[in-house]
Amino acid sequence: MANSDSGDSMLDRLVRILDAFDAENPTLSVGALARRARVPRATTYRLVDELVGHGLLAREREGTLRLGLRLWELANRSSAARDLREVAMPFMEDVNQLVRQSIQLAILHDDEVLVIERLSRPGSVVNQASVAGRMPVHRTSMGMALLAFSPFPVREGYLERHGTVISALHVDLRRELAHIRLNGYATFDGFIDSESTGASVPVLDAHGHALAVLAVVVPRGSESLPAAVMALRTASRGISRALRA
Amino acid sequence: MANSDSGDSMLDRLVRILDAFDAENPTLSVGALARRARVPRATTYRLVDELVGHGLLAREREGTLRLGLRLWELANRSSAARDLREVAMPFMEDVNQLVRQSIQLAILHDDEVLVIERLSRPGSVVNQASVAGRMPVHRTSMGMALLAFSPFPVREGYLERHGTVISALHVDLRRELAHIRLNGYATFDGFIDSESTGASVPVLDAHGHALAVLAVVVPRGSESLPAAVMALRTASRGISRALRA
Repeated sequence: MANSDSGDSMLDRLVRILDAFDAENPTLSVGALARRARVPRATTYRLVDELVGHGLLAREREGTLRLGLRLWELANRSSAARDLREVAMPFMEDVNQLVRQSIQLAILHDDEVLVIERLSRPGSVVNQASVAGRMPVHRTSMGMALLAFSPFPVREGYLERHGTVISALHVDLRRELAHIRLNGYATFDGFIDSESTGASVPVLDAHGHALAVLAVVVPRGSESLPAAVMALRTASRGISRALRA
Repeated sequence: MANSDSGDSMLDRLVRILDAFDAENPTLSVGALARRARVPRATTYRLVDELVGHGLLAREREGTLRLGLRLWELANRSSAARDLREVAMPFMEDVNQLVRQSIQLAILHDDEVLVIERLSRPGSVVNQASVAGRMPVHRTSMGMALLAFSPFPVREGYLERHGTVISALHVDLRRELAHIRLNGYATFDGFIDSESTGASVPVLDAHGHALAVLAVVVPRGSESLPAAVMALRTASRGISRALRA
């Protein structure tokens, strides 16, 4: 696409504009949008008009902007996330009802945990995961289960890229990952929230590599953890089988 | 954005490229993508490279393309569809478990029914709705319930724009809509599928206008229809109340 004086393409700017909206900033004024997206104000005004015309952005009554339904529609009617979610949902509902805690489905993407789906229950413990939200890999049970069951080059690549951060934690991550592979699941006492423990089980492909992860968060020290893990392991096998069919 | 010789902007082309992927065509070769998007092949190649670089498209192993996870992430972490879905999901799960049929949540958008969420059950009757899919307004119970409870100008606008198609159906649509407003719900014997009956209840705002619709599809002639409608009406009130809170 046509490049601006600053050297970034129109597509770069467009992505930064869409990226400026998130769960904490679902609506933005044009001025705030220009600032967050680091796009000149005049260009932002012009782009916003075009994006609103295409339904990718929508104007709220107060003149603020939010992501348009057309963007949601384009992104959701076909995607790898959607296919995975469709297959996993009935199994997630089973676990959600039996374990009576929130359950989430996530994948490893760009060295982060990307949450694909989440079913919550009223009264379930604090849980930071939100759909399409990202979480750190080596500080969550989801990330650890995904990493442990990643192909060797993916795992080693991650450990190399994040070596400095990881060594500051004073834990032997390779050893922990080996332990998770041995157990078949990962648990993690609330790094993110001290009241809770996360338990995660990988959804494996035919080569034994993680396609995704299923996770529940239970109150820390809960006696129901082993049963929750067993529900996840059972559901995970069902999802693997359904994905192969 | 910079205009091409043919007069359409880069954003026009970008939207047509994303629009070329749907539930029936989740993956496309670059050639097929250029044809479906009506974008010159050379331009398509260049745009695809940029889009893959940003993660908005992804290359599959066989060289075909599909929508990228980054697009899914950008569109899902903040949107009106997401907010509505978050509030409605627990109520939809209740109905799904009690009525034991698929349930969907939809809105009226650009003169069509846009499906926001769907919970299915194994063994439930045939149901054409899929998430982010579109369905016709005046041939589905969802569309009729949404239209009946739309503000007067929206309803009349729709009837004007689609007058020719509607008069060919030889039904008095205004009368049917008044009937739906009186009942508080819409039922429709399978126009789309002859084995099933759709039942839809609007989710109303404080002015009595439909924000969305909740629908189940039951086997045609099923005696459980009144009970299913009652479950929908109860859930719909819960969602309205939760949206106002």
